[in-house]
Amino acid sequence: MDNKQMLMIPGPTPVPEPVLLALARHPISHRSDEYSAIMGEVNHNLKWLHQTENDVLVLTASGTGAMEAGIINFLSPGDRVLVGCNGKFGERWADLCAAFGLEVEKITAQWGKSIDTEQFRAKLAADTDKTIKAVIITHSETSTGVLNDLETLNRHVKEHGKALIIVDAVTSLGSVHLPIDRWGLDVVVSGSQKGYMTPPGLGFVSVSPKAWEAYQTAKLPRFYLDLGVYKKAAANNINPFTPPVNVVVALQVALRMMQAEGLDSIFARHQRLMKATREALKALSLPLFAADEVASPAITAVAPISVESEQIRSVMQQRFNIALAGGQDHLKGKIFRIGHLGFVSDRDILCLIAALEATLQELGYESLVPGVGVAAALRVMSH
Amino acid sequence: MDNKQMLMIPGPTPVPEPVLLALARHPISHRSDEYSAIMGEVNHNLKWLHQTENDVLVLTASGTGAMEAGIINFLSPGDRVLVGCNGKFGERWADLCAAFGLEVEKITAQWGKSIDTEQFRAKLAADTDKTIKAVIITHSETSTGVLNDLETLNRHVKEHGKALIIVDAVTSLGSVHLPIDRWGLDVVVSGSQKGYMTPPGLGFVSVSPKAWEAYQTAKLPRFYLDLGVYKKAAANNINPFTPPVNVVVALQVALRMMQAEGLDSIFARHQRLMKATREALKALSLPLFAADEVASPAITAVAPISVESEQIRSVMQQRFNIALAGGQDHLKGKIFRIGHLGFVSDRDILCLIAALEATLQELGYESLVPGVGVAAALRVMSH
Repeated sequence: MDNKQMLMIPGPTPVPEPVLLALARHPISHRSDEYSAIMGEVNHNLKWLHQTENDVLVLTASGTGAMEAGIINFLSPGDRVLVGCNGKFGERWADLCAAFGLEVEKITAQWGKSIDTEQFRAKLAADTDKTIKAVIITHSETSTGVLNDLETLNRHVKEHGKALIIVDAVTSLGSVHLPIDRWGLDVVVSGSQKGYMTPPGLGFVSVSPKAWEAYQTAKLPRFYLDLGVYKKAAANNINPFTPPVNVVVALQVALRMMQAEGLDSIFARHQRLMKATREALKALSLPLFAADEVASPAITAVAPISVESEQIRSVMQQRFNIALAGGQDHLKGKIFRIGHLGFVSDRDILCLIAALEATLQELGYESLVPGVGVAAALRVMSH
Repeated sequence: MDNKQMLMIPGPTPVPEPVLLALARHPISHRSDEYSAIMGEVNHNLKWLHQTENDVLVLTASGTGAMEAGIINFLSPGDRVLVGCNGKFGERWADLCAAFGLEVEKITAQWGKSIDTEQFRAKLAADTDKTIKAVIITHSETSTGVLNDLETLNRHVKEHGKALIIVDAVTSLGSVHLPIDRWGLDVVVSGSQKGYMTPPGLGFVSVSPKAWEAYQTAKLPRFYLDLGVYKKAAANNINPFTPPVNVVVALQVALRMMQAEGLDSIFARHQRLMKATREALKALSLPLFAADEVASPAITAVAPISVESEQIRSVMQQRFNIALAGGQDHLKGKIFRIGHLGFVSDRDILCLIAALEATLQELGYESLVPGVGVAAALRVMSH
């Protein structure tokens, strides 16, 4: 039996049927009143989801394109930046900044641990000349399932006073409370295929007034990703360059569904899915790659010991049509990752855990007590 | 009655039902074997459509993003480039090159006229020091419906020997014969929402071996649009960054439909649609903005005299649900544009012309002889 795929990877994430059907509507002109009305609603609802009055600009790009826009619009060659690196996407920030000639200081932590905000505090406090132009961080590190302590880090940046804070929220936005305006986050980037329950194709960048000030003097060359052009277009509910009209129409439907659920419910659901998943894995004696205190509500990474990660993924795929993600870079074969962000329900987690138990049984996993995983997940859900 | 929109704009273009249905499939992982098989077929069929053995790289970007990739990967700040400017998209090339610090020499022609290849020849012949690094041209100028004489221009570039030829083929690829390998075109950019019969969301760049050589020493900064990364990924039938999976799956279906029709038939159909449209407009005494000799098979621009362009567009939209494009920049209100590229049939043109006759009648157009437009189109189609 084919075509009953279940996506449990960190992205693309599952897409609700009404969103898929909207996607299949015949494209309309991106220069029509009908489209502007859609874009107007999308712009409005993106601000709601981002908890901000800032511009939330919509780019035709992958998340990495949005990350690039978040750098080149606000910085100049030679600018000193602090970059938090505790996973693949932190490293991507560093590589991206280096490619554009910034002076990058990495503050690293082991993959699977959270970054140490105290190291940032010390560097920022020592910077009395205010040479640090930006602090750049991955909120939810997709490669390891770690949620970095953005709130504390941001407080240190605010004490510094000059540096911008630039955040990769690709797998956190829409899955965890991220009050952009209350915290005063300057640049926050994300992508449609994650918490937004929408297919890939759109990147988002929210920009604070302080970041727009930096934009005025930033000297890196830019054209396609020049956010000033997007800001001007957004004011008229259009896009500067042809957008993926179908994905925008799909996003309109997804945002309506999210509004109907409500922000608090969405975040509570992700907390519950995370806890249920983690408690089930603990009950199955499968070691979690990130500690409870720093766990991302979007992704759980597992580092099994007496059974092979890749074998688990393979049986889950072949026997149950459940797609899990593998480890990246040096973690290839060492961990597997469960995405539980976006359009994911309690039922999906129960299904996942039950299938995982069956998989462990098939692989001859010694310490298996069938049913304990599902029971542990159920305990979380019934609280 | 709503929802019976007919798109006759230069893009997004109409999308066949099987392509829309493919679009609505649930997204799959872009790191799965299933996806790689799709991407492998798409890569193969893109080379067929582009008539090339060069890499045809697939970007998550608008056409303008593909244009930017076509510049920043092959040139360095201060490089001297000749840019043909006879419409909005030629001007966009010039603006883009200037944004990246190139030394831009514009070779302009009036909007609605073709560029003068002789001016390029003279500049190239005079460049005995070989300081011209690239000649940059818009093949089909979407803003005016002019098809520039790329074949002759390219011959002059080849006589120069050093300069790259970089082509915007956004509305020509898939609608007019463009033999990339036979002509030896170095960089050719296009977008999914035009001749490809696919929704917007993907940009394409084909890259010749000579262009890859230039890539080695090109010094403009790049990360998201670094084509070397895309080339490496394409060799493994993957994408470096999350692609719009749904649009790729849709493109797979569209390319299969194009293969079934065959290149010669596709190009002959576009020639026929162009001629039928133009003969009908002539019969209706509506002045064509571009001369027959330089007419694009993708777009026909009309500059009506005794009746308002915007009124025609408005009645066509409101009474017949047919979307036409207006003029851009200084041509706003002066011309309207008919897109007849991609998934457009003889029937669509007959329908368009009949509705246009009705519209002219409604607007009290003096010289109208009802039926002469349709009759003229039919004459072309029955040849």
